[in-house]
Formats: sequence, C-alpha cells, structure tokens
Amino acid sequence: MLFELTREFLEQLELALMNKNESWLKEKVCSLHAADIVSIINELDKDKAIQLFHFLDEDKQADVLMEVDEDLREEILSQLSPEEIAEQVENLDSDEAADLISELPKEQVEEVISKIEDDETAEDIVDLLNYDPDTAGGLMQKEYLKVHLDWSVKRCVIELRKQAENVEKVYTIYVVDEYEKLKGILSLKKLLIANPSDKIKDIYKPDVIYVKTDTEAEEVANIMDKYDLVSIPVVDLQHKLVGRITIDDIVDVIRDEADKDFQMASGISENIESNDSVWKISRARMPWLIIGMGGGVLSAQVISGFEGGISKIPALAFFIPLITAMGGNVGVQSSAIVVQSLARGNELMDSIFKKITKEVSIALLNGAILSSLIYWVAFVFENATLGLIVSLSLFSVIIFAGIFGTLIPLILHRYKIDPALATGPFITTMNDVAGLFIYFSIGMLFYGI
Amino acid sequence: MLFELTREFLEQLELALMNKNESWLKEKVCSLHAADIVSIINELDKDKAIQLFHFLDEDKQADVLMEVDEDLREEILSQLSPEEIAEQVENLDSDEAADLISELPKEQVEEVISKIEDDETAEDIVDLLNYDPDTAGGLMQKEYLKVHLDWSVKRCVIELRKQAENVEKVYTIYVVDEYEKLKGILSLKKLLIANPSDKIKDIYKPDVIYVKTDTEAEEVANIMDKYDLVSIPVVDLQHKLVGRITIDDIVDVIRDEADKDFQMASGISENIESNDSVWKISRARMPWLIIGMGGGVLSAQVISGFEGGISKIPALAFFIPLITAMGGNVGVQSSAIVVQSLARGNELMDSIFKKITKEVSIALLNGAILSSLIYWVAFVFENATLGLIVSLSLFSVIIFAGIFGTLIPLILHRYKIDPALATGPFITTMNDVAGLFIYFSIGMLFYGI
Repeated sequence: MLFELTREFLEQLELALMNKNESWLKEKVCSLHAADIVSIINELDKDKAIQLFHFLDEDKQADVLMEVDEDLREEILSQLSPEEIAEQVENLDSDEAADLISELPKEQVEEVISKIEDDETAEDIVDLLNYDPDTAGGLMQKEYLKVHLDWSVKRCVIELRKQAENVEKVYTIYVVDEYEKLKGILSLKKLLIANPSDKIKDIYKPDVIYVKTDTEAEEVANIMDKYDLVSIPVVDLQHKLVGRITIDDIVDVIRDEADKDFQMASGISENIESNDSVWKISRARMPWLIIGMGGGVLSAQVISGFEGGISKIPALAFFIPLITAMGGNVGVQSSAIVVQSLARGNELMDSIFKKITKEVSIALLNGAILSSLIYWVAFVFENATLGLIVSLSLFSVIIFAGIFGTLIPLILHRYKIDPALATGPFITTMNDVAGLFIYFSIGMLFYGI
Repeated sequence: MLFELTREFLEQLELALMNKNESWLKEKVCSLHAADIVSIINELDKDKAIQLFHFLDEDKQADVLMEVDEDLREEILSQLSPEEIAEQVENLDSDEAADLISELPKEQVEEVISKIEDDETAEDIVDLLNYDPDTAGGLMQKEYLKVHLDWSVKRCVIELRKQAENVEKVYTIYVVDEYEKLKGILSLKKLLIANPSDKIKDIYKPDVIYVKTDTEAEEVANIMDKYDLVSIPVVDLQHKLVGRITIDDIVDVIRDEADKDFQMASGISENIESNDSVWKISRARMPWLIIGMGGGVLSAQVISGFEGGISKIPALAFFIPLITAMGGNVGVQSSAIVVQSLARGNELMDSIFKKITKEVSIALLNGAILSSLIYWVAFVFENATLGLIVSLSLFSVIIFAGIFGTLIPLILHRYKIDPALATGPFITTMNDVAGLFIYFSIGMLFYGI
C-alpha cells in the first residue's frame, strides 16, 4: 500500500548505498513508485541521490528525473552524454520531454534532439518547444486518442488499440474531420456501450470545450475546474487538434499559483522551497525587506515632522505601533478578498464604485466598534484628549486602509500587474505612512501645537 | 465554444425574465453548460435567480443547485416540497446527493430520503451521510465500475455496459474478489487492448493506491497529486471497496485549502467571498483586528515604560514604525515557508534545530546588509548614536523575528493547531511588542537614561 518514508528506512538506505548492496536497493527502492523514490531522493545528499538514481530502471529514471529538484536534475543531466539524455527523453511523455529539453544548455539542445531515435517523437518535441511554457501550448502533450468522424465503432476500436500503445492515460477520445479539425469528443463509456457497426458521427458529442495554444495556463486551470474536466483538447489557429492537457498538470498549475500568491502575500519574491539554499532564500526575501525599510524611513520622516509635539506630549508616541499595525491589518484584509476574486476570474467585475462602497460600509462598522473600544484604553493610559485623538485616528485609518487595500489591487490588475503584489508589505508600508500622518495631524490639532 | 458572460447578455436576460420570454430563455440559457448557468445566476438578484432556476430542465436544475451560493440553495430548497427535493437528489451523483441532504434542516432529512424512489440510491446516500465531510468517506461517491477477479474480459465488458449506465465519468475499473475486497485496478486502456477470452486476473494491476474512509481530505489531495491520479478507490476497515473519489472533487479541496490559507495569512478567520454580506465579512475580520489592537495596546504599554527617554530624545520615536514593520515582515516571511512545507506534508521533518540554524543564517545575512544601510539613514536623521541604536536594534529584531517566525508554526503543528494561524497578525503582533522592547532597551543603554 502507501509507502511511508521513515528515518530508519533512510538510515538503512544510506548503509546500502555505502556498501553498494544492490539486491537490497533493487528490492526495497527500485520497486517503489517513482513519486516515492523522488521523496526519498529529496532527503539524500546530492552524491548519494545521484548514486541511487543510477541504480534505477531506465523508464523509472526518466520519471524520477522530472520530479526531483531542479538543481539535482541539472547535476544529473550534466553527467549524462547526449545519447543518454535522448534515451531519458524517449521514456517520457512529449510534454515532459519538451520541458526537460528546454532546461538543457542551448548548445546541447540540437545535439540531444538529433540523437532521438524515433522521428515522430523528435518532431513532437520540436513542435512543443515553440510554445510559451505558461500557455496551453506549453502544457499540452502530443499523446492522445483521436478518431475520425466517418469511422465505424469497429474500425475505431482497431485504430485505438494501436494508438493506445503510446498513450499512458486514456480519458477521452477526440473526434476530428478529414482536415484534422476538432469536431467533438467520444467518451470511453459511449464506446463501451456502442455496437461495432455504429458510426462515430452518430454517437459522438459535438459540443466540446477546448482551449487554444495561446490560452494562458491559469485560464486553462479555471476552465478545467469550472467544467470539471480531466483532460481538455488544444487547437491551433486553424482549429486543428494539436494536443491535450491532462488534469495532473493542471493540479500542479493550481498548486504553484496558490504557493506563489501565498508567498507573494508573505513578502517573498521568488518561488522558493524550504530546502533551497540560504543564499537563494535570502535573495528572495530581500526586495520586500528593502521596500519595508524604505517605508520605515518614510514613516520616520513623517514622525520627525512632529518632533516638537512628541517632546511636549511623549504619550503620543505610545500609540504609533497601534495605528500602523491596524492600518496594515485592515489593508491586507481588504486586498486579500479582491486579489482572490481577481485570481479566480470567474465573475463579472462589479463596478469599482460598488466595491468601494461595500468596503467603506465594512470599515465604518469595524471602525466604529474598534475606535470606541480604544477610546477607553487611551483614556486610562493618559487622558480623554489622547482617548479622542487615538479613537478618531484609528477610525480614519481603518476607513483609509479599507479603501486603499481595495483600490490598489484593482488598479494593478487594470495595468496587467499581478495584484497579489499588492497584499503584504506594499500595502502595509503605504498604510503605515498615511496612518501616521493622519494620527499626528489629529494629535497636533487637538493639542493645539 | 466557451460561453462568455457579458453585461449585454445579462441585460437581455433580465428583460426576458421580466417578459417571461420562454423561447429566448430556453434557447440562450437552458442549453448552456450547468457551470455557465451558475455563473449567470451568481450575477442575478435572488428573485430573478430563482425564476431562472425554474425554467431549467430537471437534471440541469440539480447540477446548478449544487454549484450556486449556499444562501441561494437554501432559499430554493425551502420553496420545494420533499418530493421535489427527492427528485433533485435522484439526478445527482451519490456524493453530491449526500452533500445536498446534509444541508437540509434535520427534520426534513428523513422525509426526503423516504421519498427517493430508487432503494439503492437511498441506501447509498444513507451510507455516505455517516462520514465526516472532511474525510475520504465524505468525499467519495458510490458510482464506479467494478469487476471480479475471476471474470473473463468478455463477461467484464457485458457487466460494465450495465454498470456504466449509472457512472457519469469512467476512468478506472476496480477489481475485487468474491468478498468485495479491493484487489487491484484495470485500466480502460488494458481493456481496450485485451482479447475477449483473457481473464481479468491475468491482465489486472494488483498494485493499487487507495485510501481508507477516514483518511483526511487534505491527505487524499496530497496522495492524488503525488501519484498523479484522476480517481482513487476508498476501502473500509475490512478492506472492502466502498467508493471512489474523483479528481474534480480534489481540485476543489486544493483550491479551498489554498484560499483558506491565504485568507488566514491575511487575517480573515472564516472562509468568505467578495460577494458575501457586509455583516459576514465584517465578522470574519474582527477577531484578527482585535488581536492586532491588543498587540497595539501591549506595544503602547512597552513604550510608555520608556516615556522619560522619549521626552528627552524624541528622535527615538521616529524609528518605532521601522522596527515594528521589519519585525513583522521578517516574521511573516519565515513562517510562510514553514507553513507551506507543513501543509504539503511530503517531506521528512528536518530537526527543529536544523531549521532554526538555517533561519538564523538567513537572518544574519539579511540583518547585516539592512542594518548597515539603516545606520547611515539614522545617522543623517540625527546622529551616530541614534545610527548605532537603530542599526543594532534592527539587527537583533531581524534575528529574533526569524527564529520566532520559524518556531511558532512548528509548535502549533506539534499541538495539532493549523500553523496557517501563525502567519499574519499573530506573528506580526508578537514581533511588534518584542521588537519595541529590544529597541528601547538598546536606546536607553546607549543614551544612558
């Protein structure tokens, strides 16, 4: 049943690698599912990982190669000859083969392709290399089942038997006309129930959801999710069937997108994983930290404008963190919802005015509750004047941050910038500066400084 | 091809609904895919949505009902008689049928079930209602193809034709023994290639990945993603096959999980959507705002302890926002990576010590760069003493926040609390308080107050 990776297993494995205990490795590791071998390899040092890799069967090698960390894949590939890489490529589906080749150094690509023995495979890969990896063309594979409109079920089954040899996962059969144009789909279920003498054109479903080669990956994901599809055909400008995309690749797109959004909202600019190097993680975090520091310096600038006030009423300084924290929290909350509904892209945009009106209503409600609470806290800390100042400022900041947090992602979206950028440090920083300005202005007004 | 919802279409639709223009509605709306009808309904007022719903064919009604917002579904169901609800239920797959029934008021459940005409359907639903919705049992459906180990391919095809009538989506055929115990799978591809006289036991794949009824939904998602599965069989304690889960349900689990994490990291405590009511959104945001305000009050408490220092050196107040913002940013960055790798659950936990060491290395690197930059800024603002104070404080805060941001999610995880709670306002707030204490302590030390 499911393989579970334990520390004991890893220790035994490292021992077996050290002693070159081939029979143990063959029995305990090589028989596992490629995905399990990958999770083992991710826990090993680079040298041991490579050593284990070479113990695997050829077709498992290819699957493992595609799933391990990029650094390790690069290292393994650099140790293989162009012939050996071509062999790995031939053991992969066309979409993965193209991905693998696109990662090779430019000067190696042509050589590897020339070493691929099967001409059709080579052609498919060369074709797939033309597409942007973030589009349907970059995600699709050339392995799919295809039947002609005017075939009988009997002929269809004979042809499918041939085709199925090369298609690992069979979900739907695509129906094309004599010009290879996509006409519809035929479900396996229909085929199972049909009589051998039936004609495809009488039993196929002409209503088919497809994407074009240049449809963006995220949109493909939204479409497959919306219509609950496990595979979707891809057509070119002439409406010819050129490939299909399967749901497992889309699940990866959805997870990557979610990871990216989550990381961006957390102020991390590159896609990183916890086992990346200190240097890489550090670099991915630096841009936001510098923006945050810039914001901090701007805030310092704002406060220094009120230096006289602070030296007279030092208690004004007490509530600086409260004002900045609340502005940040409200801003992030407001933007998160907008960012999410923009990413899903499955609703007509309400007018901006309507969104802002709603956000202001929420801010009025939350602001009223919180600012009346904080009045009493500041009153106890110092006096009624400070109570009023903090309370009024908090109320204004909550409303400002709510509007600002809603507007920024909408504006970024309109200018085709990823609105996920807006959440996290950017909005927080801007709200800090604006919130402090509001706070101290109200403070000066009340204390008449 | 793909339906695209436009404002013009909506206007025409509202006109057609007003004029009860049935032929327009039948032609333009009722022929659409259920998912498209749902996106139209989401844009309508409640009354018009219900009006449109009643124009739909019966089996489309059921699909639409399952996908619209919960509030609207509740409203529609409240207007239907138990018999009518039972009809809707019979048009759904068993998993959705069970979900629908579980949303009904308790006193209605039994009555609706008694009105279901097909006994087997009713039994399946009653069985499914027993499982926790967040487990494999709660996600699975009773519709799947099942063959016996000792059948021939010919008999298998005959039996499958019968079974396929009830199974909307056919992916994999499950093989069971005479006690209904799951023995393996048979791919449709294998069946397509096999000879009618072959025995199932000679062509099936005994190595099968399955889950148990009590496996958690998130783990099911991780397993299906890891092994690239489109469907997975579910077995009970006796290893009997009791259902299957399809990838479309898992895509929903993955998206919901990602949304939840993103919202939680943004300080939103309930799962909400941008079209929820002001009151609901407001309530979902309140808990974090109150925590944030509590943190702000604690910060005020810390600063008030240094009131004397501030009145002497008001410039100390300038950098309060910088210190709190940077502590927050670093804390969130550190925790995000830990939260993500915990959610994925696909790696052996490094020892906590190793994670902390790495985080400290990153913090040392980033801290050194940023604190040497800020030295010069604070120097220009005021003088070398303040430069040193701010620089040293920033360095300490970055290291503290890095460690704290890593530890908190690990600790929450150990105590089985969702570590996504840790990112967002909670860590930010704690870092504010600690950072201010560090900053003012260093300040007092240097200025000798």
